[in-house]
Amino acid sequence: MAAPVAPRRGVGRRPGAPDTRGEIVAAARREFAAKGFDNTSLREVARSAGVDPALVHHYFSDKQDLFLAAMNLPFDPRTVLPPALQGPVDGVGERLVGTVLQIWDDPALRPALLTVVRSALGNEGTAHLLRDGFLRLVIEQIAALPGISNPQHRGSLAGSQIIGLIVARYVVGLEPIASMPAVRLAALVGPTIERYLFDDLG
Amino acid sequence: MAAPVAPRRGVGRRPGAPDTRGEIVAAARREFAAKGFDNTSLREVARSAGVDPALVHHYFSDKQDLFLAAMNLPFDPRTVLPPALQGPVDGVGERLVGTVLQIWDDPALRPALLTVVRSALGNEGTAHLLRDGFLRLVIEQIAALPGISNPQHRGSLAGSQIIGLIVARYVVGLEPIASMPAVRLAALVGPTIERYLFDDLG
Repeated sequence: MAAPVAPRRGVGRRPGAPDTRGEIVAAARREFAAKGFDNTSLREVARSAGVDPALVHHYFSDKQDLFLAAMNLPFDPRTVLPPALQGPVDGVGERLVGTVLQIWDDPALRPALLTVVRSALGNEGTAHLLRDGFLRLVIEQIAALPGISNPQHRGSLAGSQIIGLIVARYVVGLEPIASMPAVRLAALVGPTIERYLFDDLG
Repeated sequence: MAAPVAPRRGVGRRPGAPDTRGEIVAAARREFAAKGFDNTSLREVARSAGVDPALVHHYFSDKQDLFLAAMNLPFDPRTVLPPALQGPVDGVGERLVGTVLQIWDDPALRPALLTVVRSALGNEGTAHLLRDGFLRLVIEQIAALPGISNPQHRGSLAGSQIIGLIVARYVVGLEPIASMPAVRLAALVGPTIERYLFDDLG
């Protein structure tokens, strides 16, 4: 399984230079919060940070990449999810849930993830950022599964179950979900994901 | 279907008296936040409000009742859920989800519900209150279904899907869940609830 922490490009700091990357991330955070994900451009982030747009492209490969840094998300779904989604369709739900739980169960990652989720769910202004900047990536990965019809529809239903699992286990601490072994929980919830993705939903 | 707004006892104000009920609710909010649901007693709330414990019992039938008022929850799951849970087992998932969506879709109730959920999910200190004071009531209702084995286990799995649906539709605005007709969404998600409640989960 892929390491959950995606490598970032250009994290090195130029000797003697100010923390340009940090300034870009701070500007991105301001711009995303003010305008939403879709209405923010890398060019505007560069202007807000007072740097050349080429520098933004030097540190971040695209807007999603910058967004994940701005949200302090410690992993990139485009790196982490494909291994779970590859392989036989049978069991893909269990593998997907297992991967999500593996990331969240990692004590090195959970505090940052909890902060992101609490901030996004606790404020009207940031929930849409989680949706447009992050959930969309997750659903795109799911939608790329072979033979999946109506992917946004099915992916969002699967997403709702995964969101609920994260909230129940990590945010609210609902038992027995909160302390159940991840492997067991993935086996229980996996078939729900597969039903949403592949079954005739009527 | 039962009206979502549960009647409260003793909401009348004694002429010339201070807002005793309001003071009790404010005290309850402080006590629940400081000590959690399980460690707060009606006696302590009365002390904190500076009133006789009998007055707390005059306004609120039990601790759950006081809690729902303290959280500003505009409905009581003990009143609202039983009609959905009664009747044939076949379709109970769809009726349960339909009831939840009907409450949340009500423009008179949604702002208060969003405030409660945002506050509970956005703060480490209040998530456990939602769990102990509210989700427990919901799961108790579900667990009272006839012939349900291991109700806490099954009820919490069903709860995770309902939580995820609420977050996706109302907090995050994930499409197409956010704008799908409630009846359609209940039909899509109902079978998941029934699987968690009744199927052999392995």
